[in-house]
Amino acid sequence: MGNTIKLIHGDGGKDTSLLIKEIFHKHFDNNLLINSLDACVFEVNQGKLAFTTDSFVVKPLFFSGGDIGKLAVCGTINDLVVSGAYPKYISCGFIIEEGFRTDSLEQVAQSMGEICKKTGVKIVTGDTKVVEKGSVDGLFINTSGIGIINKRYEPKPIKEGDKVIVTGGIGEHGTIIAIQRYEMKVKANIKSDCMPLDKVIEKLEKYADYIKLMKDPTRGGLATALNEIAEFSGIGIHLKEEKIPIKKEVLSVNQLIGLDPLYLACEGRMILVVDQKECESVLKEIRKCEGCEDASIIGSFVKSEIKSIVFMETFIGGKRIIGSLEGDMLPRIC
Amino acid sequence: MGNTIKLIHGDGGKDTSLLIKEIFHKHFDNNLLINSLDACVFEVNQGKLAFTTDSFVVKPLFFSGGDIGKLAVCGTINDLVVSGAYPKYISCGFIIEEGFRTDSLEQVAQSMGEICKKTGVKIVTGDTKVVEKGSVDGLFINTSGIGIINKRYEPKPIKEGDKVIVTGGIGEHGTIIAIQRYEMKVKANIKSDCMPLDKVIEKLEKYADYIKLMKDPTRGGLATALNEIAEFSGIGIHLKEEKIPIKKEVLSVNQLIGLDPLYLACEGRMILVVDQKECESVLKEIRKCEGCEDASIIGSFVKSEIKSIVFMETFIGGKRIIGSLEGDMLPRIC
Repeated sequence: MGNTIKLIHGDGGKDTSLLIKEIFHKHFDNNLLINSLDACVFEVNQGKLAFTTDSFVVKPLFFSGGDIGKLAVCGTINDLVVSGAYPKYISCGFIIEEGFRTDSLEQVAQSMGEICKKTGVKIVTGDTKVVEKGSVDGLFINTSGIGIINKRYEPKPIKEGDKVIVTGGIGEHGTIIAIQRYEMKVKANIKSDCMPLDKVIEKLEKYADYIKLMKDPTRGGLATALNEIAEFSGIGIHLKEEKIPIKKEVLSVNQLIGLDPLYLACEGRMILVVDQKECESVLKEIRKCEGCEDASIIGSFVKSEIKSIVFMETFIGGKRIIGSLEGDMLPRIC
Repeated sequence: MGNTIKLIHGDGGKDTSLLIKEIFHKHFDNNLLINSLDACVFEVNQGKLAFTTDSFVVKPLFFSGGDIGKLAVCGTINDLVVSGAYPKYISCGFIIEEGFRTDSLEQVAQSMGEICKKTGVKIVTGDTKVVEKGSVDGLFINTSGIGIINKRYEPKPIKEGDKVIVTGGIGEHGTIIAIQRYEMKVKANIKSDCMPLDKVIEKLEKYADYIKLMKDPTRGGLATALNEIAEFSGIGIHLKEEKIPIKKEVLSVNQLIGLDPLYLACEGRMILVVDQKECESVLKEIRKCEGCEDASIIGSFVKSEIKSIVFMETFIGGKRIIGSLEGDMLPRIC
């Protein structure tokens, strides 16, 4: 294999096979992948499937709390989860820069394999391209995923009084990426929130009929995701600033660098719209999930004069309108 | 939108929405895509599905006979087809360099949309990332695809006497990429063979039980694909050079530039292993498909002293062993 990836590792011949066997099959080990030729083939039962895709171009590739591989697998798992689907199969396409370190690639593959083991999701088909030095910034990964829809989780009409829950502290992923990319000298206990959310929908199954919508606040952060939800609902959202979980360190760092955590990407958080009748029970269940101990009810749906407006009652009792992200806060966070 | 793509078009906020609506939705128009949030949801019947992925990094992005968009959709369609699946749904992930021309992006999207219309395949979910100038070479696309398996096309044991068919002239895609990338002053009527192969399996349905394996000779070309098939069969393949369809222009150009067309990628060709009983009828049907008029029976499976060997009887009656691709002939051909 050698210490670095070379163009021949992407030519589709013997060296490509070697790379796939020695790095990818080793960490993604499952029969569906190993037996697949041009495509993976699997049985399905009658029902509904969810299908999603994401490309990952995060910079830096390795960061506190994760790396591009963990992010790629979690990101696609979470897109399926918020669609009400149990994630099953993932594809991965690697685009690698000539000269990329083989041990770094293996580290990424290992992270991907670990999330697969943890969640039971299988990487079943893949593709590897190698491009000349300078044609790509290190490593980009695409993951697409297939999940089986639980129809009870399908989106339902949202009405006045429904509650908004977020499953944990916001802005952590975006903040650590900013700190590490720009090599800021900050001593803060912050790491990416990147994690798979499959256990949350498993745990909430008995409440599925009361869950009206789920969404993960990735690019554009909590603010942008809430605006999309408000749009879908046709009514307004009244947030309470004091209820939004944000770590002190995240707040301080962002005051320093001038970013707004409401717009920073999370990679292991979910927003749920829940019928008020069961929202306390749902919250209790969510808090039992690993990494969701700080889940909180952050607001309610309200009738509003302006359709689909999101506004926040601030700590000091003021009112702030929260729009969608409109400028580029921080590129390449995922 | 402006004349060029900017970083804000990838931030997940309003500008990303605008780009998706004005370029992608316009050309990929279908309800599944437009209604999909984090994933596309569709119904399936009990059965088998095929799932595949490919990243496309071709250079140049536009070439005679196609562009990266056409290539990306055809490539994924063809991976499903050779797996015995009717292609249904495709995802696409764009990674765009800051400053990329908006009209070029639209041209790529239009090519993708045209193949979708022609084949009935739907682009149902997507993702757009924009990275800083210099972090990617223009535009990379990932397409993943889902198809419905026709079980009668599943791989079958291959035995002595079975025939090898190729659906058209080889090496055309690889040759035009070499000519245009290196700006060779060649006046030859060559264009990429890039095309979708879905009609071939539709047309061959009544012979499906006689078709033992299908494969598309992309990276690594005909030679590498045949070696993989020989490996699967456990026996040898005897090719006849005179039967392999190669355009005169392709031969001449490759003699000039020193590349071997047997190892050059095709992007609209398929190899079929067919029971000898029905191989003439199968050939006749294939030749009726648009673009497959030059299909030919190029060899037979034979017992061989060396397991899984591929050899070619040359024009002058000699014997040449055809191994898998072992060096990098031409990077970034797809």
